[in-house]
Amino acid sequence: MDERVREHASVLVDWSARIEAGDDVVLSVGPEAHDLAVAVAAELGERGANLLTTYGSGEVSRAYLQAHDGDFDEDPEYERRLYEAADVVLSIGGGRNTAAMADVPSETRQTYRTARSGVREARYDTRWVSTVHPTRSLAQQARMAYEEYQDFAYDAILRDWEALAEEMAKMKDVLDAGSEVRLVKEGTDLTMSIEDRTAVNSAASVAYDSHNLPSGEVFTAPYDTEGTVTFDVPMTIDGEAVRDVRLEFEAGEVVDHEAAQGEDVLTDILETDEGARRLGELGIGMNRGIDRFTDSILFDEKMGDTVHLAVGRAYDACLPEGQMGNESAVHTDMITDMSEESRLEVDGEVVQRNGTFRWEREFEA
Amino acid sequence: MDERVREHASVLVDWSARIEAGDDVVLSVGPEAHDLAVAVAAELGERGANLLTTYGSGEVSRAYLQAHDGDFDEDPEYERRLYEAADVVLSIGGGRNTAAMADVPSETRQTYRTARSGVREARYDTRWVSTVHPTRSLAQQARMAYEEYQDFAYDAILRDWEALAEEMAKMKDVLDAGSEVRLVKEGTDLTMSIEDRTAVNSAASVAYDSHNLPSGEVFTAPYDTEGTVTFDVPMTIDGEAVRDVRLEFEAGEVVDHEAAQGEDVLTDILETDEGARRLGELGIGMNRGIDRFTDSILFDEKMGDTVHLAVGRAYDACLPEGQMGNESAVHTDMITDMSEESRLEVDGEVVQRNGTFRWEREFEA
Repeated sequence: MDERVREHASVLVDWSARIEAGDDVVLSVGPEAHDLAVAVAAELGERGANLLTTYGSGEVSRAYLQAHDGDFDEDPEYERRLYEAADVVLSIGGGRNTAAMADVPSETRQTYRTARSGVREARYDTRWVSTVHPTRSLAQQARMAYEEYQDFAYDAILRDWEALAEEMAKMKDVLDAGSEVRLVKEGTDLTMSIEDRTAVNSAASVAYDSHNLPSGEVFTAPYDTEGTVTFDVPMTIDGEAVRDVRLEFEAGEVVDHEAAQGEDVLTDILETDEGARRLGELGIGMNRGIDRFTDSILFDEKMGDTVHLAVGRAYDACLPEGQMGNESAVHTDMITDMSEESRLEVDGEVVQRNGTFRWEREFEA
Repeated sequence: MDERVREHASVLVDWSARIEAGDDVVLSVGPEAHDLAVAVAAELGERGANLLTTYGSGEVSRAYLQAHDGDFDEDPEYERRLYEAADVVLSIGGGRNTAAMADVPSETRQTYRTARSGVREARYDTRWVSTVHPTRSLAQQARMAYEEYQDFAYDAILRDWEALAEEMAKMKDVLDAGSEVRLVKEGTDLTMSIEDRTAVNSAASVAYDSHNLPSGEVFTAPYDTEGTVTFDVPMTIDGEAVRDVRLEFEAGEVVDHEAAQGEDVLTDILETDEGARRLGELGIGMNRGIDRFTDSILFDEKMGDTVHLAVGRAYDACLPEGQMGNESAVHTDMITDMSEESRLEVDGEVVQRNGTFRWEREFEA
């Protein structure tokens, strides 16, 4: 076994999920994620945690959803009980075809998601972490050779997370102290309020309210958005290619939108509900182990020199205790490249210029 | 997809597990059983049952067990709750290596099994069914080519179960009415009491107290065994090849044993506990779709023209209400070929001679 698979398992179990003896762990395994599952099982055994493995297959889900009449039972008791009693849910993605569910109508997916919202909440109440095992299908999605993709993925995953968390703490401090964020680059001049919001130092660990491996972003929940933003990083949303999205905001709400490709998908998302036209997230990518876009949101949004915004649901961790943030059935991230001719300002001060943060040596004041 | 995979799924869901809308179904999927899992998921969706898939991998189990210090938690709550609330557990075996757990010490397996006995009981309280997807590793175990093995497996699985159940009912009637069974062939002259015991017509359906697909045997729980029996069908027990076992019984208990190969494994089993030296099962194979031995107990013990006996635990379904049968931590089946120069008698009357039952045309009275 590739030594990096064992390292990945060790980072997932120790750094990300903070697993200890006696933890009741659900491990969800993608059909091509077997090797990482074996390595994780060894880590869990060594720590004396309990292990129950589930099978996360898009093809199985597709077959089930396509055959069902759509009148789904709400939160089946056996599944709800499992996740309510679980301490940790580790999900290892990785199948044979990233488009395995392409022909499942979005309405069916949405109906199923809604019927399982109690199960999902129970899962989110655990120390959950999502990661992927580098597979050939993900390499293909990234337009990369398999071994090339493995190198890419492990560079992103096997970081010095402690050091990155320290650097990201600087960005969190700036956002926590700030009231307004402004993004400026070609096609973009956007201001957002972040007053009273708490930024999350997303250092790929539940200890940091961070549930992705890799992670490496600082995010918060903005509101009162005004202006225009262009997302120039191509991506796949709900199975469709989307390119060069432009959103125009007034009083916090999208009032105009267009895209060079995939505009229909974008329109569908924005029309889901009222919250889908408001921002739920501003995220600043700080993982310099990710050096290219691979059409996978798990990696793309964490890349250094990028900023992403999501329309839809905001994360509770960013909100004042007891306060509701933007509510929506969707949370769709879109990314803009900040590496050139750009600036990110907080309360009028430049924090990042052309991709370089002000605490970095190369920063031009 | 091979049409037989869909038929297998349909038999499993309809005939075997009797699944209906709203059933909470756990589907355990072996690493190479993906295609059958997809077909089963479609059947479950069509019926409006709920689906939760688990991953049944010997390699994952091995990694976990080898790394663990052996001080296992007893029946973790999340797993117990899942199975207590489940209606049905469908297990589809099929991995890449039938010896995936070969180097896990039997003591470790036994300690783990004991620690999970509550979970196991909860699973046995569901409408559980075990089957296998024909894989290359099972073909190899059977010393058969892959396509040849597929034909073999589907011949065994895709029977007219209703018709077989009717034929097996005749055998059940004979056993239910009888008091004593005698097996006679070269190296074998064995008598067992079956007074007050109820035979199970194991027709591969929970409606018949039958939990294997394929099945096709009638079994009961004998006692007061006397005499000698030779098991001439070679098999793998706990990972070891075992051949030509001879057991000698007095007053229901094994008093002497030997084997041409694997005698140590046999000795270990017989010394597990007191119940391991007594019979827990007499089974009469009646599935004529199984035409050869494949070193897989799921198939071998169901083959027409065979009889098997198990030392160890008896099944409750064979016992008078509230009565305990033979208790043991083991249940090890061993098979004898009845196709030639043999007879099976119940209360002195020949029921099967040279593999032919008395209700069959070729029977020689």
